[in-house]
Amino acid sequence: MTARVLEHPPAEEIRLDEVLHALADPARLEIVRFLAAAGTEAPCSAIDLAVSKSTTTHHYRVLREAGVITQVYRGTSKMNGLRRADLDRLFPGLLDSVVSAAEAHRADTAPASRPTP
Amino acid sequence: MTARVLEHPPAEEIRLDEVLHALADPARLEIVRFLAAAGTEAPCSAIDLAVSKSTTTHHYRVLREAGVITQVYRGTSKMNGLRRADLDRLFPGLLDSVVSAAEAHRADTAPASRPTP
Repeated sequence: MTARVLEHPPAEEIRLDEVLHALADPARLEIVRFLAAAGTEAPCSAIDLAVSKSTTTHHYRVLREAGVITQVYRGTSKMNGLRRADLDRLFPGLLDSVVSAAEAHRADTAPASRPTP
Repeated sequence: MTARVLEHPPAEEIRLDEVLHALADPARLEIVRFLAAAGTEAPCSAIDLAVSKSTTTHHYRVLREAGVITQVYRGTSKMNGLRRADLDRLFPGLLDSVVSAAEAHRADTAPASRPTP
């Protein structure tokens, strides 16, 4: 396996509007909700988004490029983790309120019931 | 003048992903930040977005259709107000965290320095 390293924005380049855009999708909200609940890194396969593999890859990339998650290759797995420390410092309370709302409205936002394009 | 009434989603139809999408734009963040700071209704002309009139109209419509603001004709003015009670009940803490972050990062998100398409 190769030592592939994916690009992540440094914390000082994380922008509120880009974070909000990254969160503004039911599938991406489910990823963030899951990772927040897990409290640890998880592979993409741990989260059932009911969308195609390429769409799944796209959603994770949007979250990573906005600074919401980290993606690190560990062995054969790409592991995803929330950038909670960065987000909590930059936008206090934002992640918690979004995750709580996503939990509360999970039935409305579950990708299985609302397929994304 | 006509008694025009603009459509607003009922509170039970306001969706987290649509609210986040509406907030995910520097000009729309500035509108929400301004209305939160004002604590009252304001006409579109009160908020300088440094974008064209049609773009301004678009931004307000996105916010209204997502359930973030009300738009009501009063005399010759279209008055805009935050749906704070609805948003705070549906997504506790979300609006406050976004407004605080927008205040803190205002220099980064001011539309004058980052024109929107």
